[in-house]
Amino acid sequence: MNDHQDLVIRDAALGDVPAIIALLVDDKLGSTRETPGDLAPYRAAFHAIDADPNQRLIVAERDGQVVATLQFTVIPGLSQRGLIRAQVEAVRVAKSERGNGLGTVLMRWSIDEARRRGCGLVQLTSNQARPDAHRFYERLGFAKTHAGFKLKLDSAD
Amino acid sequence: MNDHQDLVIRDAALGDVPAIIALLVDDKLGSTRETPGDLAPYRAAFHAIDADPNQRLIVAERDGQVVATLQFTVIPGLSQRGLIRAQVEAVRVAKSERGNGLGTVLMRWSIDEARRRGCGLVQLTSNQARPDAHRFYERLGFAKTHAGFKLKLDSAD
Repeated sequence: MNDHQDLVIRDAALGDVPAIIALLVDDKLGSTRETPGDLAPYRAAFHAIDADPNQRLIVAERDGQVVATLQFTVIPGLSQRGLIRAQVEAVRVAKSERGNGLGTVLMRWSIDEARRRGCGLVQLTSNQARPDAHRFYERLGFAKTHAGFKLKLDSAD
Repeated sequence: MNDHQDLVIRDAALGDVPAIIALLVDDKLGSTRETPGDLAPYRAAFHAIDADPNQRLIVAERDGQVVATLQFTVIPGLSQRGLIRAQVEAVRVAKSERGNGLGTVLMRWSIDEARRRGCGLVQLTSNQARPDAHRFYERLGFAKTHAGFKLKLDSAD
């Protein structure tokens, strides 16, 4: 395992958006869902994330290249004595970096950030078509206690 | 099925917090996780939710009684062309109201609110110990495509 001493984990800037989209496209589930030629909807999303203090869009950079991304969200709530949740979405690691421990570094960063923000729980969902990812999260100590449900809304509605 | 014409769905006020906690306690998984005698952490959580324009804590009221609750969260994101997600957490219906279609009314309210906020997806997780809830969400059109992972953080860390 790489020691990742040369890795920089930081908030994404607007200029990182094309590199993040490239990571989203370079994925067995994401390849058909993105439009890298039309950046406008991604820039709008970047600004919505950037304006919200409970959202952080994160990139990992090595030698000036964005090699991984994730989105970190803080969700306050009443249940479990006002437990604050951290949620991790859209974790993507460049193909060239898979299997070298970078995902573990990023998830440990997320867990540390969750503690720093006073969260009592870190949660995420992972598509059932990603069994390797499920084993990865279980190795990190996550428990697969829930089923994740999604309802797509027709934008024409 | 009740037609629910007399139901009022509205944002929770601080004064609703004890009634919401009572719904959280009146649950097979929540009964041991709450401290109704100590409202301070719940009030702090209420104010954090109330201050965040991407959070809505909702109650359903009938004849002046809070009979159900849920939390509605909007999460912007880059993936899927800047898809905005709506997330539903902490759905609870009073025992006296179960099986009368109130849960369906609340989830339809959430789906309508998601559309109003420009969301392309509604998502939620449900504990694997709640198979009846899973069937309920599938009847509403949700697809059980994901596994939900949770990592509890030790507050003493």
